[in-house]
Amino acid sequence: MAERLIVVGGDAAGMSAAAQARRRRGVDDLEIVVFERGHFTSYSACGIPYWISGLVTDREQLVARSPKVHREDYAIDVRIRHEVVEIDLVRREVVARDLDGGGEVREPFDTLMYAAGAVPKKPAWAHTDAAGVFGVQTLDDGSALRGWLETEPRPRRAVVVGGGYIGVEMAEALVRRGLSVTLVERDEQPMSTVDPDMARLVTEAMRGLGVDIRTGVRVTGLAERDGRVSEVVTDDGPIPADLVVLGLGVRPNTELAAAAGLPLGPTGGIRVDRQMRVSGVPGVWAAGDCVETLHKVSGMPVHVPLGTHANKQGRVAGINIGGGYATFAGVIGTAVTKVCELEVGRTGLREREARASGFEFVSVIAESTNRAGYYPGARQMTVKLIAERPSGRLLGAQIVGWSEAAKRIDTLAVALWNKMTVDDMTALDLGYAPPYAPVWDPVLVAARKAVDALAG
Amino acid sequence: MAERLIVVGGDAAGMSAAAQARRRRGVDDLEIVVFERGHFTSYSACGIPYWISGLVTDREQLVARSPKVHREDYAIDVRIRHEVVEIDLVRREVVARDLDGGGEVREPFDTLMYAAGAVPKKPAWAHTDAAGVFGVQTLDDGSALRGWLETEPRPRRAVVVGGGYIGVEMAEALVRRGLSVTLVERDEQPMSTVDPDMARLVTEAMRGLGVDIRTGVRVTGLAERDGRVSEVVTDDGPIPADLVVLGLGVRPNTELAAAAGLPLGPTGGIRVDRQMRVSGVPGVWAAGDCVETLHKVSGMPVHVPLGTHANKQGRVAGINIGGGYATFAGVIGTAVTKVCELEVGRTGLREREARASGFEFVSVIAESTNRAGYYPGARQMTVKLIAERPSGRLLGAQIVGWSEAAKRIDTLAVALWNKMTVDDMTALDLGYAPPYAPVWDPVLVAARKAVDALAG
Repeated sequence: MAERLIVVGGDAAGMSAAAQARRRRGVDDLEIVVFERGHFTSYSACGIPYWISGLVTDREQLVARSPKVHREDYAIDVRIRHEVVEIDLVRREVVARDLDGGGEVREPFDTLMYAAGAVPKKPAWAHTDAAGVFGVQTLDDGSALRGWLETEPRPRRAVVVGGGYIGVEMAEALVRRGLSVTLVERDEQPMSTVDPDMARLVTEAMRGLGVDIRTGVRVTGLAERDGRVSEVVTDDGPIPADLVVLGLGVRPNTELAAAAGLPLGPTGGIRVDRQMRVSGVPGVWAAGDCVETLHKVSGMPVHVPLGTHANKQGRVAGINIGGGYATFAGVIGTAVTKVCELEVGRTGLREREARASGFEFVSVIAESTNRAGYYPGARQMTVKLIAERPSGRLLGAQIVGWSEAAKRIDTLAVALWNKMTVDDMTALDLGYAPPYAPVWDPVLVAARKAVDALAG
Repeated sequence: MAERLIVVGGDAAGMSAAAQARRRRGVDDLEIVVFERGHFTSYSACGIPYWISGLVTDREQLVARSPKVHREDYAIDVRIRHEVVEIDLVRREVVARDLDGGGEVREPFDTLMYAAGAVPKKPAWAHTDAAGVFGVQTLDDGSALRGWLETEPRPRRAVVVGGGYIGVEMAEALVRRGLSVTLVERDEQPMSTVDPDMARLVTEAMRGLGVDIRTGVRVTGLAERDGRVSEVVTDDGPIPADLVVLGLGVRPNTELAAAAGLPLGPTGGIRVDRQMRVSGVPGVWAAGDCVETLHKVSGMPVHVPLGTHANKQGRVAGINIGGGYATFAGVIGTAVTKVCELEVGRTGLREREARASGFEFVSVIAESTNRAGYYPGARQMTVKLIAERPSGRLLGAQIVGWSEAAKRIDTLAVALWNKMTVDDMTALDLGYAPPYAPVWDPVLVAARKAVDALAG
């Protein structure tokens, strides 16, 4: 009789694991059942802001593989709108609720894959029954928000609370749809995923697009009228709003896991080993936004909810469940985003992370251009490097620029991954041609400056 | 009394060396004299095709630092239009001819920096007095060609002989100026700087732009009429031409060096040590397009004439002449170019180079996109990887794509520089956001495919 794998959560991590396990083990050997509480599987949550803005026209474009494809092409028994409400590790069963049909099913498993993702952080003030308040985590969230944009009377004034990636991307998306947008940020600046000196460039660009940015402001409540949100109440006064987006980040979705006794780490994510096996729990695996992972530079556990990690981790878990061998090496905090026309990339540690990890370091900022200065379309590109003192080892890097800038962070990410020093980096043989770089590539200019700073 | 440094050649390598030496040693300590046979110093030869095409409007934009700036701001005695015609290592003197004023000067040196660059390869058939035949190596060459384009009767039919970087870039530039352009290539395809399977994409793009590409054709002579070139004679018949561009590559400009007894290596370039000191000749340094350098993958000497190496090597020589310590680490053959709207990048070894170096390897080609498939502007991107068997070490990589493709080669160049295996590479933490990459970056897709090929 076939063994049985139950997957909790049918997005990137869960479906990657299921697909890899299926690739290695046929239906006679392994039955695979996936419970997904939403309507969709294998979709790009990162694409939601572009669907909201209208850049992406059709929701289905965001779905890489539908439940139907998983069922028919991969023989994976996907059950959407089924929420797992209990995991019993002793009886090795899950209980799932049918969100549409009602009722519960109880299903046994030999192997469990927990991939329940993350949920938007929701402070006490955000718990409201008023319509018009949205997180942007799942495609169902996105659908609800799209629906609200077309609900009469149509919303005109949006307030985005929190200036991380999703907050910033949503602010831009809503401006592009013609709404008047206010972004409320508790810290001195939005985009704290890069250091303040780099984030300033992003703030300026967003203001240039017409986003009203209120920094150092704390939200304390929401007001409503006729069941619709009407104001965001802050310690700096109320802000009128008929649409509120929660961009306060996400936390690992682990209630169910914790209740079942799966171990959580200091970040709140599930603890897994390098094979994505839940630490100390035989036959149970976890991957994606619900787990914590190793930061290769700080050596500390971190929670980095990002589709690219979820896919890699899910694949690793699936290979191992399928009887192969694979490990997840950890992360170095690489991320890129587009804010208006500005491109932002980061990898490794920010200054405050480097400090918190106990590193001594120097930081340099080098101004350069994306192309040879004389080539049409040359635009400013700012590269920041953080290097350990005195070793010169690269600890972190950030790039802000106007075009062809963000993905340059990969060059630095690979250097950092390989523990290169900034001195070694000055020798790198990088591509040069006038349409693509000055003869001294911005990365090399920054590395040279860091070498000077270490010597000085 | 100050020591005396004489620099032969005032472009990237020579002037970088002079500037670095000056930075470390004042005028009372080191006198610096530069002889340059052309009119310009420190210019971007790589920018010439874009000036020819009209994309760059002003020749002066290509000049990073004029002789005047070198003289006044750096106290470097730059003598343009002076060609060094003899180097006497015993008397430690050079003889330079004043190309405009006539006459010769004899100047002593303590230290000599040889940076005479490269000269276009010119087969016997190309030695002609007919007007309208051009190499594209120096800014003076570019000026002459620009002048010819405006000489009545204006040239209408251009033939570019040779399909390397310069040939391909010049063919495009001349098409953009409205000329009818034929590119004659002896091999099966132009753009042999990448493997034939990748070069095919470039050939198609150039044909799409209207360039007539004749492959497998050997040029045997030039015909002229009234002192102007009129035909390129080939083994496949004559091709009418009133402008001929020699794109047959360049060779190190070493006549003078060889006559003086400087050692040449197997590539024809001057042999230097890691500090850019001419091997076995005290007090003499060389850098740039006239030297050969170490290929870090093959371990063989190579001649790679490229501004980025010339600048780095010149800087290294100048630091050492100035009393500091620096070394040049070698190259890995990274290059990028823009052909029509197509972007091309390469690093490491091509298949035939890998074979010639004695490597066993697998090659894979992976199709992907530059952005998430659903994001507007997503275009095809083809990544080829060559990995040693059985170790999996990356030996070479090539990318062809439509936008945001070429500089992705840097990611692979840094991986290759650090001797990563394709298996290690699948774990890399690269930037992901829909405007910049699919959730599996094209580099990761290709690395996974290479891992499969190694296992298969």
